[in-house]
Amino acid sequence: MPFRFEIEARDDKARAGRLFTPHGEVQTPVFMPVGTVATVKGVPQDTLEELGVQILLNNTYHLYLRPGVEMIRQLGGVQKFMSWDHPILTDSGGFQVFSLSSLRKVTEEGVTFRSHLDGSSHFFSPESATAAQIGLGADIIMAFDECTEHPAEYARTQASMEMTLRWAARSKKYFEEHRQEVPWFADPALAKRRLERGTRDGSTRSSEAGEHQALFGIVQGGMFPDLRRESARRTVELDFPGYAIGGLSVGEPRPMTYEMVNAAIRFLPEDKPRYLMGVGTPEEIVQYVAQGVDMMDCVLPTRAARHGLLFTSEGRITIKNARYAGDDSPLDPNCGCKVCARYSRAYLRHLYASNELLAQVLNTIHNLAYYVDTMRKVREEIRAGTFATRS
Amino acid sequence: MPFRFEIEARDDKARAGRLFTPHGEVQTPVFMPVGTVATVKGVPQDTLEELGVQILLNNTYHLYLRPGVEMIRQLGGVQKFMSWDHPILTDSGGFQVFSLSSLRKVTEEGVTFRSHLDGSSHFFSPESATAAQIGLGADIIMAFDECTEHPAEYARTQASMEMTLRWAARSKKYFEEHRQEVPWFADPALAKRRLERGTRDGSTRSSEAGEHQALFGIVQGGMFPDLRRESARRTVELDFPGYAIGGLSVGEPRPMTYEMVNAAIRFLPEDKPRYLMGVGTPEEIVQYVAQGVDMMDCVLPTRAARHGLLFTSEGRITIKNARYAGDDSPLDPNCGCKVCARYSRAYLRHLYASNELLAQVLNTIHNLAYYVDTMRKVREEIRAGTFATRS
Repeated sequence: MPFRFEIEARDDKARAGRLFTPHGEVQTPVFMPVGTVATVKGVPQDTLEELGVQILLNNTYHLYLRPGVEMIRQLGGVQKFMSWDHPILTDSGGFQVFSLSSLRKVTEEGVTFRSHLDGSSHFFSPESATAAQIGLGADIIMAFDECTEHPAEYARTQASMEMTLRWAARSKKYFEEHRQEVPWFADPALAKRRLERGTRDGSTRSSEAGEHQALFGIVQGGMFPDLRRESARRTVELDFPGYAIGGLSVGEPRPMTYEMVNAAIRFLPEDKPRYLMGVGTPEEIVQYVAQGVDMMDCVLPTRAARHGLLFTSEGRITIKNARYAGDDSPLDPNCGCKVCARYSRAYLRHLYASNELLAQVLNTIHNLAYYVDTMRKVREEIRAGTFATRS
Repeated sequence: MPFRFEIEARDDKARAGRLFTPHGEVQTPVFMPVGTVATVKGVPQDTLEELGVQILLNNTYHLYLRPGVEMIRQLGGVQKFMSWDHPILTDSGGFQVFSLSSLRKVTEEGVTFRSHLDGSSHFFSPESATAAQIGLGADIIMAFDECTEHPAEYARTQASMEMTLRWAARSKKYFEEHRQEVPWFADPALAKRRLERGTRDGSTRSSEAGEHQALFGIVQGGMFPDLRRESARRTVELDFPGYAIGGLSVGEPRPMTYEMVNAAIRFLPEDKPRYLMGVGTPEEIVQYVAQGVDMMDCVLPTRAARHGLLFTSEGRITIKNARYAGDDSPLDPNCGCKVCARYSRAYLRHLYASNELLAQVLNTIHNLAYYVDTMRKVREEIRAGTFATRS
């Protein structure tokens, strides 16, 4: 199987390594910016590359509705569609169906929902959501899950978790029967890249005809440690190449999030990547790495940027504040990004106060740089063995 | 006087040359993108540099209201404020006062108007508008004028033109008495650059203590050729280092614009730059160059881009059109810009249809590239002597 994960350094529970995917390598731990409809809002792809972004998350729900799976399949998959010749991960669609759409009806078979765009009716099952993700062609895709609402009673959470387990098995079965349908399965460019990779790192060549995606399982279980353990144990029994922890950061207090991550992660295999979905602040993502998490995604850096909330080495800055109107210093004197290298707080404040497009563009570039740099330092510290003692 | 204009090639009435300004040189004929409030909407300054943009236009009216002239003066002038170490031109504020503000009252003394932002009351006179432009510190500034409404009767147009002439004399008088107040008058970096320039091209060093701006006069006269001639002749008598033709592209049919440009331009001195304000389409700007125009500005490429109207070598493209949904070809196969080099029409169509920020960013980059390339080719053709025969 072409998808591989290698752990290259450990520091207490934290790990540094590499993911190998059909569209390239990813150094872990990694933060994945959210590119909802195949764009990180306001940021051109070459700028993402300059920033050192390694992998993007796209939302299956949004791309399914617009421009549609068949369109992206015909255009060669989402990497070609958005001209991002690097890894992409799509979520299962489950979270958006539960958070954005209206008139949901959940049955054992799947979820009927109405589009938030035009009210049209749609149906996602483990099979159809997996089919959609195969058609989109991200490098890593997710089993279809029910994101249990918060708060929820124990019995309701347990039943939801059990259904997610059954859906995971169905997602896997569908994936194994259809994975060669990914648009770039027989793409010669990817085969060439894979050959070069095999030659370079001496890994065994797969005997399969083409490249396919990696399907990850998702642990649920709400805010109950025993359900988290149970979900982790039984998801692992289904045997996925990677495991996500879902259903967190849904309004619970942060110590509870840490407790749930801890409850689940101890039952996830050491040698597989662990992806904590939908987190977090710059401080939190470092803490999750210390718990053994390898991958994270969150809209926070990009959404906060568009609302003028900027993360810096000296703390958070609300750029619309009048105190910055005459401040000709850089946003973050310790940041090397192209925004901090060129523009003053006064200019950024003016752009934001004037509701200018460039405010959203530059703010997003900086916040992404801050997240990317945070994770780069974390990886360096893990490899140097200095991470666990400081975090 | 440090500001200089050199004509280096002629082809019939068209001219190719260079403007020398305190913040650098400009190859003419030149199209100046509009950066209303010190930003070309959605495009970072390094991208403008990559595109080959040489000089920007900023709007005095907008910057006067927000962030205010004193703020920009304290921050070293508008070039430092927006981190654009290249030439900038500000308009006089007259056009925006007449087109954007409400409750105007025009007297011989000046114009009382209400801000379009908050309804606050303000007053622009030739003296105060020139003071504002000195405080902002653009390299080229404009005499305060009345942009005559269209259509207008002969007597009304003549009276307006006469007032603009009196205002031009007052603007010039104020400028000559206050031009050393420009924020970068004694900036050592500019003095050094000027010295290097003098050494390189052998030009005579000015004996003045510092750098100052160049104030251009503006020809008015509505849609009456004899008033255009009269305005040109008498504005030239006031002796400015450059001349603009204003009050056109205000709703009149295009042949009338050409006629008015022709009526005025024959009375403008050969050796001074000629700036036609507020034009035009890609086809039109080439025609104006053929009439002897050296500088132009227009919101068209940037505003049209934000509305999905794209200029290409194969004609105009309305990118929201469903025919582009599955079109994996570049926007313009003959364009070398970074948008055409990387993205498909299908992707650009998707971004626009999804109302994504990146649509406005990428569309604007392409349209600016198209304008910049159009003018680059025009300059090359004039120098090669092949321009007049083809245009």
